[in-house]
Order: sequence, then C-alpha cells, then structure tokens
Amino acid sequence: MTSNQLDKKAEAWSALFSEPMSELVKRYTASVFFDKRLWLADITGSLAHAEMLAAQGIIGAGDLADIQRGMAQIRSEIEAGSFEWKLDLEDVHLNIEARLTQLVGDAGKRLHTGRSRNDQVATDVRLWLRDEIDLISDLLKELQIALVDVAEQNVEVILPGFTHLQVAQPVSFAHHLLAYVEMFARDAERMADVRRRTNRLPLGSAALAGTTYPLDRERVAKTLGMVDENGSPVVCQNSLDGVSDRDFAIEFTAAASLCMVHVSRFSEELILWMSQNFGFVKIADRFTTGSSIMPQKKNPDVPELARGKTGRVVGHLMGLITLMKGQPLAYNKDNQEDKEPLFDTVDTLKDTLRIFAEMVGGQLNPATGAKEGGITVNAAAMEAAANKGYATATDLADYLVKKGLPFRDAHETVAHAVKAATSHNCDLSELPLTVLQGFHPDIGKDVFDVLSLRGSLNARNTLGGTAPAQVTAQIVRHRTRLG
Amino acid sequence: MTSNQLDKKAEAWSALFSEPMSELVKRYTASVFFDKRLWLADITGSLAHAEMLAAQGIIGAGDLADIQRGMAQIRSEIEAGSFEWKLDLEDVHLNIEARLTQLVGDAGKRLHTGRSRNDQVATDVRLWLRDEIDLISDLLKELQIALVDVAEQNVEVILPGFTHLQVAQPVSFAHHLLAYVEMFARDAERMADVRRRTNRLPLGSAALAGTTYPLDRERVAKTLGMVDENGSPVVCQNSLDGVSDRDFAIEFTAAASLCMVHVSRFSEELILWMSQNFGFVKIADRFTTGSSIMPQKKNPDVPELARGKTGRVVGHLMGLITLMKGQPLAYNKDNQEDKEPLFDTVDTLKDTLRIFAEMVGGQLNPATGAKEGGITVNAAAMEAAANKGYATATDLADYLVKKGLPFRDAHETVAHAVKAATSHNCDLSELPLTVLQGFHPDIGKDVFDVLSLRGSLNARNTLGGTAPAQVTAQIVRHRTRLG
Amino acid sequence: MTSNQLDKKAEAWSALFSEPMSELVKRYTASVFFDKRLWLADITGSLAHAEMLAAQGIIGAGDLADIQRGMAQIRSEIEAGSFEWKLDLEDVHLNIEARLTQLVGDAGKRLHTGRSRNDQVATDVRLWLRDEIDLISDLLKELQIALVDVAEQNVEVILPGFTHLQVAQPVSFAHHLLAYVEMFARDAERMADVRRRTNRLPLGSAALAGTTYPLDRERVAKTLGMVDENGSPVVCQNSLDGVSDRDFAIEFTAAASLCMVHVSRFSEELILWMSQNFGFVKIADRFTTGSSIMPQKKNPDVPELARGKTGRVVGHLMGLITLMKGQPLAYNKDNQEDKEPLFDTVDTLKDTLRIFAEMVGGQLNPATGAKEGGITVNAAAMEAAANKGYATATDLADYLVKKGLPFRDAHETVAHAVKAATSHNCDLSELPLTVLQGFHPDIGKDVFDVLSLRGSLNARNTLGGTAPAQVTAQIVRHRTRLG
Amino acid sequence: MTSNQLDKKAEAWSALFSEPMSELVKRYTASVFFDKRLWLADITGSLAHAEMLAAQGIIGAGDLADIQRGMAQIRSEIEAGSFEWKLDLEDVHLNIEARLTQLVGDAGKRLHTGRSRNDQVATDVRLWLRDEIDLISDLLKELQIALVDVAEQNVEVILPGFTHLQVAQPVSFAHHLLAYVEMFARDAERMADVRRRTNRLPLGSAALAGTTYPLDRERVAKTLGMVDENGSPVVCQNSLDGVSDRDFAIEFTAAASLCMVHVSRFSEELILWMSQNFGFVKIADRFTTGSSIMPQKKNPDVPELARGKTGRVVGHLMGLITLMKGQPLAYNKDNQEDKEPLFDTVDTLKDTLRIFAEMVGGQLNPATGAKEGGITVNAAAMEAAANKGYATATDLADYLVKKGLPFRDAHETVAHAVKAATSHNCDLSELPLTVLQGFHPDIGKDVFDVLSLRGSLNARNTLGGTAPAQVTAQIVRHRTRLG
Repeated sequence: MTSNQLDKKAEAWSALFSEPMSELVKRYTASVFFDKRLWLADITGSLAHAEMLAAQGIIGAGDLADIQRGMAQIRSEIEAGSFEWKLDLEDVHLNIEARLTQLVGDAGKRLHTGRSRNDQVATDVRLWLRDEIDLISDLLKELQIALVDVAEQNVEVILPGFTHLQVAQPVSFAHHLLAYVEMFARDAERMADVRRRTNRLPLGSAALAGTTYPLDRERVAKTLGMVDENGSPVVCQNSLDGVSDRDFAIEFTAAASLCMVHVSRFSEELILWMSQNFGFVKIADRFTTGSSIMPQKKNPDVPELARGKTGRVVGHLMGLITLMKGQPLAYNKDNQEDKEPLFDTVDTLKDTLRIFAEMVGGQLNPATGAKEGGITVNAAAMEAAANKGYATATDLADYLVKKGLPFRDAHETVAHAVKAATSHNCDLSELPLTVLQGFHPDIGKDVFDVLSLRGSLNARNTLGGTAPAQVTAQIVRHRTRLG
Repeated sequence: MTSNQLDKKAEAWSALFSEPMSELVKRYTASVFFDKRLWLADITGSLAHAEMLAAQGIIGAGDLADIQRGMAQIRSEIEAGSFEWKLDLEDVHLNIEARLTQLVGDAGKRLHTGRSRNDQVATDVRLWLRDEIDLISDLLKELQIALVDVAEQNVEVILPGFTHLQVAQPVSFAHHLLAYVEMFARDAERMADVRRRTNRLPLGSAALAGTTYPLDRERVAKTLGMVDENGSPVVCQNSLDGVSDRDFAIEFTAAASLCMVHVSRFSEELILWMSQNFGFVKIADRFTTGSSIMPQKKNPDVPELARGKTGRVVGHLMGLITLMKGQPLAYNKDNQEDKEPLFDTVDTLKDTLRIFAEMVGGQLNPATGAKEGGITVNAAAMEAAANKGYATATDLADYLVKKGLPFRDAHETVAHAVKAATSHNCDLSELPLTVLQGFHPDIGKDVFDVLSLRGSLNARNTLGGTAPAQVTAQIVRHRTRLG
Repeated sequence: MTSNQLDKKAEAWSALFSEPMSELVKRYTASVFFDKRLWLADITGSLAHAEMLAAQGIIGAGDLADIQRGMAQIRSEIEAGSFEWKLDLEDVHLNIEARLTQLVGDAGKRLHTGRSRNDQVATDVRLWLRDEIDLISDLLKELQIALVDVAEQNVEVILPGFTHLQVAQPVSFAHHLLAYVEMFARDAERMADVRRRTNRLPLGSAALAGTTYPLDRERVAKTLGMVDENGSPVVCQNSLDGVSDRDFAIEFTAAASLCMVHVSRFSEELILWMSQNFGFVKIADRFTTGSSIMPQKKNPDVPELARGKTGRVVGHLMGLITLMKGQPLAYNKDNQEDKEPLFDTVDTLKDTLRIFAEMVGGQLNPATGAKEGGITVNAAAMEAAANKGYATATDLADYLVKKGLPFRDAHETVAHAVKAATSHNCDLSELPLTVLQGFHPDIGKDVFDVLSLRGSLNARNTLGGTAPAQVTAQIVRHRTRLG
Repeated sequence: MTSNQLDKKAEAWSALFSEPMSELVKRYTASVFFDKRLWLADITGSLAHAEMLAAQGIIGAGDLADIQRGMAQIRSEIEAGSFEWKLDLEDVHLNIEARLTQLVGDAGKRLHTGRSRNDQVATDVRLWLRDEIDLISDLLKELQIALVDVAEQNVEVILPGFTHLQVAQPVSFAHHLLAYVEMFARDAERMADVRRRTNRLPLGSAALAGTTYPLDRERVAKTLGMVDENGSPVVCQNSLDGVSDRDFAIEFTAAASLCMVHVSRFSEELILWMSQNFGFVKIADRFTTGSSIMPQKKNPDVPELARGKTGRVVGHLMGLITLMKGQPLAYNKDNQEDKEPLFDTVDTLKDTLRIFAEMVGGQLNPATGAKEGGITVNAAAMEAAANKGYATATDLADYLVKKGLPFRDAHETVAHAVKAATSHNCDLSELPLTVLQGFHPDIGKDVFDVLSLRGSLNARNTLGGTAPAQVTAQIVRHRTRLG
C-alpha cells in the first residue's frame, strides 16, 4: 500500500471489492459535504489519540511527532481554505487521514491503530456539540439579560394580562417579560444536563468490541476535557453502546425544540403586540421588511421567521427519532444521517437566540457604552387595553371575600355586576357606589381602590405575583443568577 | 427612482425605513441562498404574466419585448454561472427583477404590475414542484420496472414468507418483490393526486386581495400549463387562500414520506437478506462500502442510508405541519420556511428512487442492450430457509378441512403434529405416514404432496396468491400498466 | 376440539404452547378493548366471506344458514349490550368467532376457512374507515355550507386584510370566510382520494400468501361495495401487500392533519377576533366557558381546544409513520398499534367539524326553519380597524401606475406619502390634495375615490379578488358545487 | 349561591352566560373523562392549600377541619367507586369542589380562595407525574437488574457482533446485553432530571398574576414535598409562567420517547434472534401468541408490540410540541390537551418496562426464591453464526501491526487474505499457514490463536471492551450502582 492508497478509494474500497462506486452512489453515501465541519474536532481527537498511543508505547515518539507536524499543516491548510476535500474519500476522517499520510508517510498509516471510524465519528460529534452547547448557553444568558434589562425599565407599566387571549387581570409588563426569562433559564438547565451526557468519550470502543491494543482511554478523556464536575475522566463503559449511542443528539434536539417553542410563543406575542389593533411595542426597522407591492408595510419578519423555524427544529427532532427507531446494534450506516439535522439545529438555534437578544435589548453603542435599538414600549396603549375587559373583576370578588363571603358566592355576585356594567357599556369602576351596593350591601367607598388597575397590580404581592415589589425582587434575583 | 433602486435595498427597504438591516438579520431573513433554485420557474412565470399584461393593454408591446429580451439574457447569465446573486436583494424574485431593470429600464419596473411577491412565490413553487413530481413519477416507474424485471426471473424461486419474522408459508420470491411494486404504484397514484392540486395558478391574487388591473388569469394559467384533464385552466379562486395555501407542499411531503416508508421496509429486508445468517441476496459492490478497521466487511450502505433518510423526509413533513399550525391569514413570513424542507424532500426522494432502480435492476450496458449489476439471488439459501419453520403446516390443516374437518379442529390437530415433529427435530414431511395418521386417521399418502414447499406454493392459486400462475399473471398486468 | 375450544385460549394458544399468558401480557397484547368498535364491519365482512364460501361450494348451504343465523343473534346481542367481550379472546375477531361457534357449532368453526386474522382485520378496518370517510365528507360539506351562509350575509362588510398580522388591504369579510371554504373543499377532495385507496379488498390474502381454496374474491368485493367508479370490484392484487399495507391509515391521518391545520388557522383567527382589542366577532355562549376565579371571563374554549387538538391528530400521524418505518414484510404485530390513533383521529375530526359547522352557522330552529346562534359579526369594529394601517396605499400606487409611472417608482413615491401621513398621524385620505400633489404632480381630485376603503374593495374585481361582485360569483359557484 | 350552585353549571357558567352548553360542546370541552385520574393529587394539593390558608388566617380553623373531613369522605367515596362524576362539572377539580360544598357547605366554597383552576391543574399534574416518574425509575432499575442477571450467566457466550447487520467481530453476549443497561441507565438519569424540573410548585400563581391573599407558597411546597436536594421548597417564581408552563410534560415525553427507542432497538434484536435463521434466543411462551391460521406459529408479540408502541409515544411527543407552538401567554384552553398524551405515555412506558423486566429476567418463583421463565439462550447457535463472516479479520490485521506493519497496510493485506478464503469457501483460520504466509511472510504459527473466536474475544481487554474480564468488571460496577 503506497502512501496514497486511500486516494485510490475511487477505484475500490479494498482488494475485496470488484468495482468502484458509481458517482451517484458516491454522492448518496458520502458525508464529506457536511461533515467537514467537524474537522477541528477530528484533528483534536486524533492528536489526543496519538499522544496516548505514544505514551502507551503503541506507536513511537517519532510517529507522534510526525503526526503532530502533519496535523498542524493540515490545520493551517483548512484554515487557509487550501485543503482539497475529496468526495472519493467519503468523509472528513478519511480526507484528513489520507492527507496526513501524504504528508508524513507511515506515521499517518499508524494513526488509526486501535480505533475505527465508528468511535472516531462519535467522538468528533460529541466534542463539537459540547462546544456548541457552551456557545448556546452563553446566548441563552445574553437573551435573558436583554429581557431583564427591558423588564427593569417597565416594572410599573401595566399590560392587560390575557388568558384565552381575553383580558384577565392587569400585569406588569416586566412581569410578563420575566416569564420568558424563566423559560430560557429552564432551557439553559436542560442544556447543562445534555452537556453532561454529551461530554463522554467513546474513543477506544473501536468498531464495536473494543480493541486489542493497551489503550489508556481515561488519559484521552482527560486530554479532551471529557471530565465530570470533580475532574474525573468520563468514558463510555460499553463499546457497543459507545459506537451506536445517539441519545445525546436526540436529547439536544429535544432541548432545542423546547427552546424554539418558547421563542415561538414570544414571537407570537410580539407579532400580536405589533399589530395595529394592539400597537403595544415596536421593534427596530432592521428586524422588519417591507412589501414588494404595499408601500405602507413594515412587517415583523424576524419574529415570524423564528416562529416558522420552530417547525424546522421540531422536524429535525422527529427525523432523528425516526432514524434510530428499531435499529439493531451496533453501528449502522443510518447513523450518518444524524449530522445534518444536528448541524442545522445548532445553527438555527444560535442565530435565533443571537438575533432575539439584540432585537429585544438592542445593540451596544461603543461610543456611549449603552445598548440602543431594542424594543420600544407603548405604555399608554397597553394601559388603555387593560381598561377594556373588566380586568379588576377578580379584585372585587376578593374584596367581598375579605368582607366575609365565601369565594364561590363572591364570584357569582361579581358576575352579576359585570353583566350590569356590560349593559351600561362601562367599567366596574364607573358604576356608582349605590349600584355596586345593590349587588352586595357590604361594598363601601374603599372598593374603588380595589377596582383601579394599579390597585389590582399592587395587591398581587405574594411570591411570584405581579406586584412591582415582587417583580423588582425577581429582577434582583435574576441579576445575581446571571452574574 | 433610478433603474438600480432595488440594488440599494441594502440601505433600506423604502423611504419608510429609518435604518438598513444588519448583516445577521439579512442572513436570517434572506432566502436567496436556497430559493435561487426557483429561477427558471420565476422567469417562466414572469414571462407568462408579462405576455398577459401586454395582451390586456396594461403594459405596452414594447415593454413586453424589453422584458422578453431582458429575461433571455438573464436566463443565459444564470445558465452560464455569471449571474451575480445578491444577499441584499433577499430572494430570487428581487434579484431577477433588479437585474431586469438594470438591463431594460422602465419595462422592468412595470413587470410587477398587478402582482406581489406573495402570489409570485406561490406560483414559482407550484411550477417547480409540478415538474419535479413528473420526474418522480418517472423514477417510480423505473423502479417498478426494475422490480418486475427481477421478479420475472424469480417466479419459481421459493422464499420463506415471514409474518412476525417467523417462517410462515413458502412464497415465490417474485411475489414478494411484486408486493413492493404495489406499494410504489400507490405512491405514483398519490403523486398524481398531489400534482392535480399543485398545478393551480395563484398568480393574480396579488398581495392578498386581488388586484385593480384587468388581469386575465386564465390566460396565464393556460400559458403555464396549469390546466385540468380537459385542458381548462385551473386558477386559485380566492386570493387570500391563493397566497397562503401551502397544502400542496405538505401533501407532497406526506406522499414522499409514505414512499420513503416503503423504501425503508424494502431496505430493512435487503439488509436482513444480506446478513450472513440469511445470505439470500447480494447487491453489487458499488452500492456497498468497507470498514476502516475490519478488512472483511462489505456493508449494505445504500439500503441503510435509505432507511435512515426516511427520518429526514418524515422530519420535513412534521416541520411543515408545525410551520402552518395556527397561522392566521393571509401570508406570513413563516411561510418562507416551506422551501428548504420541500427542496430537500424532492432531492432525497429522487436520489433514492434512482439509486434503488439501478441497485435492484442493474445498469444498462449499452454494448449488450441488457441491464447488468442488479441484485443477485441465492435461490438455494432461500429454499433452505423455507424448510426450517414448518412452513407447510397450514397446508396440512387445509388438507384435513378438505377431508371434512372444520378448520378450527384441523388447526388444533396440526398443532399437535408440529409439536411432535419439533420434538423429533424433523419436518412434518419427514414424519412417517403412520405417525401422521396418529393425529388423524383420514391422512393418506397424498399428504406428502401437500407438505412439500412447491406443492404448498402451487396450491395458493387464487387472485393475489403466490402460485406461479398468479404471479405470472400479475407480471403481465404490471408490464401492460407500466407500458 | 370442543365448541368452546377458543374459550380456553386463556389456558394456551394451542397444543404448541406450554403455558398460558400472564394477565399483564394479556392486557399488553389484547386489542379487544378498542377493536370491538369494528364489530359491525367484522360481521359484515364475515357474512360476505361465508356467502362466497357457500357459493363456491367450500362450505355447505346449511353452514351458511347457521352462520347467518348466529351472526344475526350476535349482532342483536352487541346492539343490546349483552354480548360478553372476553379479554382472553384477544380481539374482536376471536370474540365473535368463539360466540358464533357456541351458537351454531361446526359451521362456526368453518367460517375461518380460507382466511386469516391478518386479512380479516385489514378488511374490517378498511370497511369501517370507508364509512367514516363518508361521514367526514358530509361534515366537511356542512361546514362549508355554514361558512357560505355567513359569507352571503357579509359580502359588503369590510375587514382589514392582514399579511404578517399587519393591516394590508381591505377585504370583504365574506371573501375571508370563503378562503376557508377553499381549504375545506380541498380537504374533501383529499378524503375522496383516500377513500378510493381505502375501498379495496384484502380478504383472500389469508395469512400472507393467499389460500388453497377456490375463493371468488371479486364476488366478496362486490358484496361489500368495494368497487370502482364503474362498479368493477377492486381487490388487493398481492397477498403479501394485502395483509401488511397500512398506507390508507397513514394517508387518511395525513389528510386529517391538514384539515386540522386549517381548523387551527381558523381558530387562531376566531380567538384573535374575539379578543377585546379586536372585538370583530362573537360566538354563542354555549361554545365558551367562564373562569373559576375571574367572574368577567367568557373564553373561546371551542376554538382553543380545536387548535390544541391539531397536535393530537398530527401526533397520531407521526406515530403511525414511526410504526411502519422499517418493518419487514408481511404482517407484524406492530400493526395492531394502528387502530387507536386511527380511531381517535376519526373521532376528533368528526367532533371538530360538527361543532364548527354549528358554531359558525348556528343550529336549525325547527320552529322557524332558520339557523340560529351562529357567529355574530361586528362590522363597525372591522371597518374601524381597516382604517388604521394605510390599507389603501397600494391603491395610490396603482393610481400612479395608471397615470403612467412604472410600478416600482409608484411604490417608492407612496412610501414617502405614507411617511408624511404617519408623521401627521393621519390617514392618506386625510392629507390635503396639495400635499399629495407634492409627492407627484399627476395626482388629481379623483384620488380620494381610490383612497376610500370601499373604493379599494370594489377595485379588486378580477377572478378570485375581493370585490363584492367577485365574492358573490364565488358564493354562487359554491352553492352549485355543494348542492 | 346555594351549596349546589356548581351543580347547576349545566344551566350556565355564571350569571354572565345567556345559555347553557350543548351536549356536544360539553363532551368536546369537558375533561373529567380522563382527568379524574388526578383525583388523589387534586385532594392532596387542596389539603395543603387549605392547611396553609388556615395557618395564614385566611380561612378559619373550623373551615379547615370541615374541608379535611369532607375530603376524607370524598377520598373514600372515590376509592369505593361510589363517587358520582358529572360531565356538567367539566373536570376533576369542580367535581371534587362541588361535592365538598355539598358535604361541608361554606367551608367548601372558601377552599378556592387565592387559587384558580389554572394553577390548581398545573399543580395536580406535576404532583401526579412526579410520583409516576418515581415508579418509572423503579421499573428502569428492575429492567437493568434483569439484564445484568442474564448477562452474568452469559459472559463467556460468544455472539457475532454486527455492524450494518454484517458479522463484524465476536462479542460476549453479556457485553451485548450490558449495552442496553447503559441505555436504560441514561434513561434513568434523564428521568431524574425531568423529576427535578417537575417537582416545583405553581400553586399561588392563581389565574395568571398571583393573588391578593397573603399566601405562604413555600409552606405549601414543603407540605407537598416539592423541595430540592437540600430540602428547600421549590416554587415557580413567575405566576404567568407558573400557569402556562408545560415544559415538564414535553420533557418527560421526550425522555420517554428515547427510552422507547431503546426498547425498540432491543425488540428488533429479540425478533431477529428468534427468527429461525438466527435461533439465538427464546422467550417464554406467555410472551408470544400463535396464529389463527398457521398452526406452527409462535410469534414474538411482546417485542413487536413494544417496537410498535414506540410510535405511539413519539406521536405524543409530536402532539405536545405542536400543542404549545405559538401559544401566547398565559393559560389557553389548548393546554387541556396535554393530559391524554401524557397519561398514555406514562401507561405505555410503565407497562412496557414491567413486561420487559419479566420477559428478560423471569418471574420470581416464591417457592424457590429464584427467577424463572426469562430469556433462553442458544449459545451454540450464536457461536456457529459468529464463525460465518470472517469475524477475526481485524485480529489478523492487529497481529500484523504488532509485527510492525502500519495499520492501513495491514488492513489491505488482510482484505486479500479474506478474498482468498472466500474463494475457497473457508474461514481464515482454515487457510494453511503457508497460504497465510503468502500474504505476509511475518505470519507465524501463533496466528491461529489470534484467529479463534475466543482468542479474539479475550484480546479486547481494555476499558469498555468485550473481553470477559472487562465484562465481569462492568457487571460488578452495575451491581454496586443498582444496589
């Protein structure tokens, strides 16, 4: 086998094969189009493997030096864009190994000792995904900070809280935004859990059964940072599982889907709030586009697209589950199909989080050190809307309870009052005291404090409630938590 | 507005917008990366629109000539690879329109009269998909022919028919292959149904409400071949529905998913049949790959990948449904997310069908005019396997029914016989007549005809059954049907 | 085997089995809990099978009479609720067959001649689903009629047409409702296509390979109404495919999912329209509920639940596809899992369509012969909303085009006008003529006709457009089509 | 309001409503059919709430006593099956509250003080799911123990390890089973993570905004065991999020889907292994069924159904995600649709795990104290199969590497040897030494140790490898871990 034997894979896989692949088959089966994205993880993993092989005396020190030199050159070639990716070499692994052998000869051919592409690709994807999860965690933090920033400026702004999209009770706009902070905080928790199960080393599982060489797998794990919270190396304990496990990809995509569901809910609200009949907020022009036909349009493209991209990520989750369903052990070629959905999920999620952080919180103006161009709030429109749907009716019921009525009776009494106000086309607070007293004699003048939006807001002053004091306390908690 | 005003969209959408899009937002919202694939449909649709505008006197004959000239040049630029696609121009439509205006001035600016991007993109996608469906229908036919070809050579080959992957009854291998012909024939039926609902014209719906110009939409439909089986033009009858309907994309992806489910079932069987414990078939080396570590391996990569790609297509279906769920009328930007899953579904399905047709039926050798390199059948291995699981037990029960036993009693009697044969570790046909008669006195010497695999096969001679006579009749029917 | 041998299945399947099933296993594997719903199809199919067996001389005339008598009794027992369903007998088929044998002895044991549960259950499900599709088609028609009824009364009512939930152009409320008629009409088309592929006879495929008895499958197909549009019997042509095909269930569920997506879109709009900031419509109180805590609430529960139930049906589609992915031929027990999702899809779709038809169009009052209690339209609120977002800006651009400007230039000119109107916080029609002329000198007094909502509406008078004349024409077309 | 005012909800929700619900609407919107299953969680939650209300002086001590007494009676009524569930009362909450008020009068009407059904149902579902997760965790442990038990008896049994379902390398059957232990151990980890995010208290969020009463939410959390690992109460910190969050249901269903994917993989293997061409294992008769037509059949129904039920659970995941996509805050009626998929997921997963634990490991025989009736292993069939596909080819390559060849050259050399053996229709170990030396002169007599299955097995003696020493070490680790 000459140094470029791998190059001749175009002709046939090995002596066993009587004919080369057709071009169509090559295109169908090759993964180098998309998996070359793993190149850095592949090199990193190979270097850790080679270093261990040398430490264990499986290859010589000279081989290791050759491999390190070759890999350094390959790295710079790829970074410079001069590396020639070959379809005939199928995937990122064989492309890099073939080039290495071209560059350094026999040492390159020794690199694959004690491993297989099966454990190699599993290692590469885990390394890559771990680092992407770290980036995503950072972006989740940025988005939470942006939301907290806007919340802080809107603690006293009154929004009509909806259930069933019907006016329910007044809430602080800050409180509403902080609901999303809770969601994205849970997403970050889930990402941390996925990271823990991703950051485990399959290398050394070889094809499926382990290897006959005296590998030190824990050394490789340490080199690659695959360690637990105590710094102990974490290694896949079963070689069959090591090469066939794709749980981490599915679990990540499930966590990403949930995050996109949260984004879709927030997007839905932004789109509603920007609709002329609400007019609650504006987003900066650069997140909107116009129409090719209607000159007046400014459309909330970014929230709409984000809502749409939820489907994309959910589709990837479903695709990955379908992929794994019913596969016998150990590695099957089906698994190659794990990469594109995973890559696209990562890209979509990162872009979406980044753009939302900026759309909500604005961009840093380096001149002023302040963020600019975030969401614009129309407090007057929000408050006007909160006055529409008897948002303080529950407060009247609670008022009656405090006068001694059982809650169920108070609830029914207020229903009558709302019916009367509706027929007079006025708010509860606009009914004269005498009329209100007609519904219950214990109603006094102090009822009007209770019936005001701000009175209602301030009254919900228990843990997790919308009263400004509670909201401010939550903002402090989030600031501390987000560092 | 100068001729290159569209070019300046980088700066801002129109006078209404106070700032340009950021690069991140552009990348997030632009579709030209992927929708440029629609360029030919876009030009075709524009030319039909322009021709009608001129016929209706909405634009002048000179304008039409300019537009035709400009479009001819754009077409050759795109084909030559010299067309410059600009991210700032968002999508295929604005890229082409801007270039047209550069080339022909005011006529270009008149092209968009009476239409909007909303109806334009809906038209483009429908035109494109219609033509892809035609290609897919051809490929489905090719695959059916390949299966019928192999079936024809294997009518008398006996395969163990499985239910629950347990040996059930002997079947003709041809009969088994023809089961897949039925599936792919149904897929073709569904594609024809989807085509009918795809080949309808939204153009003229404009943004959402129709247009103020006296368009002749049926003329455009005829020009574009959007006609029913009687040649009458088919036009979307409601403008709001016209711009927001994506049923055809979902319906197509559902039909494609079912087709991939069929492919996954066939792939599963090929993989089983190629496993050493079966050894029923071989596929040509060019559809397999080896292992980077195990020198003896020839893996059925193509069937495995196809099985895996089922998940991909199903994921796209789920993504598209999620996309449309809960969208209010009419067009929302979410809809832009329909294209990538649709494109990838088409690509995946076409590649898969093409490669399976060749893998099953072989490639045409131009020298001999014969197909070569299709599936290789190991009839002996199949027959040996059919002898393993008492595949003719039902025949013995039927034999007893013909002697007058009710079926349920015959079934129970044979269960006892099978139990005895199992304990003697032999087949039913290897039990001596006297032993068999111990289970029922009416059993005679003629029972051994019934207990043979071939006797069993030939006996299933009703419509749809596995007897060679029936199978041959089906092959004739398929040949006629497939032309 | 005594007449109640099937009853003893509790003990063991047949002589082959050394132990009975455990209770847990019985519960896990039995289907009688849910498949007893197929009882009528099962009896109908058995009677058609028995009638053919007798006609072919496979069973005697006396046997047939016994079977018919026994089945008549079973039918009345089931209808009376006195039939005892037994878990030990696993499924609807064995329950009925065992009871038949109890009632009529040997004839009952002869019924299963030439068939298997595999083809029997496939036949039952197809018969049942075919009839359900017919009910669904009727309900789709009812819903379309309800929408057309309401449309007819609202042709001149002006709604702000939205794209991106931003005010786009004025549309007739009738036109908007008719968009949904188009969607439900397509759903009905799809249902008809699915029906065609469902209404095919698998019976006679037996376990998987056909049967050794001289069945007349086409006779059975005719008896069961499984015929094409020419009245010719339609029979599954391949026995392996006949017992394992579940395409029809998946295709039906896909069609149902699309229908539910349409329902979800309409629900989303109803929910929006009922929100206090819109206030466009009301639905009758009986489709809403209140709150346990907020006395003022009337929540649009039915549209919300329907939107939610979309997920349920889509989930079933995903489940069924996952079920079939990668299954080898022929029948596998996995397939038993097809029923519950299919049943629930049918129930959900039927309930939803029925309730929407009534919620939109009202209930027939037998006293007056008129429908009452349908949707209530607040035309004033709709028109007020249409006045908010420069809905006639496109009309101004079209006006300029008719004065000779290329469309692109007109579009840009109007953007400037909208900007000015925005800064003056007024509508385009409220800008003085001289100001308008500042944007383009060709603007004359007649521009104000163009800038009115009604002028805009009437102007969109091409096929499929929103002008009342067009809308009325569509209503006529739908009335004819819906009979 | 009399004590049975809730009973009259049949008539109308409250004074606000002009008409009662129709029967169809009641059936469509009511949840009591399925949510009555939450009754114990509902009572538990109500008692904790009441106890806190009394402690805070919001209700009197007498009220609390009345509520406790009433709830005790309701509990015994439900357990006795004598509780009358009423459709008119919609859901489990109102049914119980109405009965309570019947029993104890005004105290019952005071129970709902400071809460809403929105936070009540969220609390109930979380309490219920938390306890179900604990049961599932126990079942996951049982299944792991069953697998370890069987593994322990099969450490030295040689199975052909497959990749791509082609013979790859010999593995210990115990090693193969332990791969599934790894998967189910990960499932248990994920369940623990979900439990943590489920066990948080929404109660006190009220309708959406918190409440005006001085609740002590942390007290309620402690009472209900909603505490973290340090025993501190865990309370939803944002009321809007508290009532609308369904992350825990989706996350649980995603974890359940992954677990079912593992089950589907194991099932696929069991089905393969039981097929006559493998014959590797048997499962006890009570997990199989026969055929209504083929007397010889014993079908692996339980693994097949389990494989099929994967679709069911995955479908529920898809349904739940679709449900939540794009919902605005806070509670919408759509959310009611979360329960049935969640309930069915729990039931399916529990039944499946329980039945697999018994099917693999057997049932405890109380007489002997031993488990009986688990999986039966045919070691001879496994070893025979391992001899078929040149399973030790990699070992020959490794042998050559140890003689100094670079791995890539060794790999190519062995490919030639395999080709030769194939053409002689013999195993590598059956080639004469001289022939082997023809491929490489360094091959010596010791090569035959390397070419034996057992030699190959023993050689893979690194962490996670298949050598018996490693497998035994893993069994010890699992025993310790599983307690």
